[in-house]
Amino acid sequence: MAEMAKKYAFGIDLGGTTVKIGLFSGEGELVYSHEIPTRTENGGVKILPDIAEAVREDMEKYSIGKEQLAGIGLDVPGPVVKESVVIRCVNLGWGVFNAADELKKLTGIENIKAANDANAAALGEMWKGGGRGHDSIVMVTLGTGVGGGIIVDGKIVSGANGAAGEIGHMMVREDETDVCGCGKCGHLEQYASATGIARVGRKMLAASDQPSALRDIDHVSARNIFDAAKAGDALALDIVEEVCRVLGNALAAITTVTDPEVIVIGGGVSKAGPILIETTKKYYRKAAFHAAEDCEFALAELGNNAGMFGAVKMIL
Amino acid sequence: MAEMAKKYAFGIDLGGTTVKIGLFSGEGELVYSHEIPTRTENGGVKILPDIAEAVREDMEKYSIGKEQLAGIGLDVPGPVVKESVVIRCVNLGWGVFNAADELKKLTGIENIKAANDANAAALGEMWKGGGRGHDSIVMVTLGTGVGGGIIVDGKIVSGANGAAGEIGHMMVREDETDVCGCGKCGHLEQYASATGIARVGRKMLAASDQPSALRDIDHVSARNIFDAAKAGDALALDIVEEVCRVLGNALAAITTVTDPEVIVIGGGVSKAGPILIETTKKYYRKAAFHAAEDCEFALAELGNNAGMFGAVKMIL
Repeated sequence: MAEMAKKYAFGIDLGGTTVKIGLFSGEGELVYSHEIPTRTENGGVKILPDIAEAVREDMEKYSIGKEQLAGIGLDVPGPVVKESVVIRCVNLGWGVFNAADELKKLTGIENIKAANDANAAALGEMWKGGGRGHDSIVMVTLGTGVGGGIIVDGKIVSGANGAAGEIGHMMVREDETDVCGCGKCGHLEQYASATGIARVGRKMLAASDQPSALRDIDHVSARNIFDAAKAGDALALDIVEEVCRVLGNALAAITTVTDPEVIVIGGGVSKAGPILIETTKKYYRKAAFHAAEDCEFALAELGNNAGMFGAVKMIL
Repeated sequence: MAEMAKKYAFGIDLGGTTVKIGLFSGEGELVYSHEIPTRTENGGVKILPDIAEAVREDMEKYSIGKEQLAGIGLDVPGPVVKESVVIRCVNLGWGVFNAADELKKLTGIENIKAANDANAAALGEMWKGGGRGHDSIVMVTLGTGVGGGIIVDGKIVSGANGAAGEIGHMMVREDETDVCGCGKCGHLEQYASATGIARVGRKMLAASDQPSALRDIDHVSARNIFDAAKAGDALALDIVEEVCRVLGNALAAITTVTDPEVIVIGGGVSKAGPILIETTKKYYRKAAFHAAEDCEFALAELGNNAGMFGAVKMIL
């Protein structure tokens, strides 16, 4: 019998607490995935050796020789340039170094590419998620913060400083006096992240005496706000309008730059579903350049696996 | 003697009144350029045949055989997708068609690529102008309108609708009631184009009774405003601050998307020089994400030749 020509590749999503390791077929099917803890002590010196060891074990377990492996895609929680050099990952204790080269030395595997995690997630969603069938997308992740990823012609835009897609730090309100996590004021993250939505909500509650179910809740969350809005609470609906207006305007600004085929919205806040998408789209269409007015909106589909899929896509 | 291996290529900038035709060496040196009128009558049916004829004549004049020609790059005043399909060029009377294919048929030359003129200008400036030495730039052209071009990894980002880089139509002021040329309100073009700067200036003059040399001018232009500001006129300086604040904020928003190495500013307004760059940079740095705060600013250098250079760069 002829030797199987089938190849494999790893997609590895390196997070602050766990590393998700995915073994994929050459056709892009997930064969097996598992997690190992991220050991961040001592400046994170053990992280890459741990990953190399896990890769070695997986290859042994599945009897995969190096000649059958297309390579390893790795995403990290920090800026990456030239598909290899990590600028700094505060959560991992890492400074500036070539993570791809380091992992090559540890594994003996030649083809290794690295990316920022939000960017990899965007590539994953383009490939197998909400952006399926497109090769030019903008992904915005509304979680604790606001992350973003820009894909042009099927490739991650990483930027001169690894800061492409940092749309959470687009200044959207010049008169804001509250400070963003980055130290500046009026950034998108302060309005459209889970914590940002809660902040806007609490401010709007304090600024009016309109009755609202939200007033019975001790520490109002983004989820409380969307739930109350869906139940018809007028003030909650106003908060949703305000948040989606800021987000829709920002997305319209972004599309004047790369004019994507689709905008994919992910992260915990995206669980709010159609009310979030439709309200954001309403303001987007109002602000957008006419040629990009009909840009599609989609919800992300891969959840926490998006990074792993995007990481391996860099290789396949 | 062995046959010369040296190749040639054409860079052609198709404008609403004239076509600039540049013959370049394979090393990218401009050998010869000339202009022909753009005949826009009858839906512009004669434009491409005229270009084909000019190309044929130039090849004859310089004894260039088809086998020595690398190809033709063409830029047009309208949106282009897939380096070939023109969506619509109002100024030329053109609808939607594959301009690259059409020019192939007319010339018998295989390698033909098309781009939007503002995008081609950005590529030209990256290659031989203010963005020299970089491969990721944002170009903004402050002329009668505001145009833009986004270059990532040495390539034009054209977008799903050919509308990438349409940063003149980024909404920057939600409360604006004056209408942009595109029919919507509050777009960057209304503040940072030559006409936009004059509009802002006239509004600020009308809203105050502060003395200003500008009050002696019948129809205040952007140039009047920058000249008066350079001469120390306080109200003119305020207008420059206002315009550069809006522009600096918009550029900061754009860099959260593609994080370029350099921002190149061109167009008639850019003749204002350092006062424009430095004031814009001040507001840019205040609004930008910290990783992109030190992004370089440069003035465009190629003037009206930028499109021709960018067009040929798509081929070389």
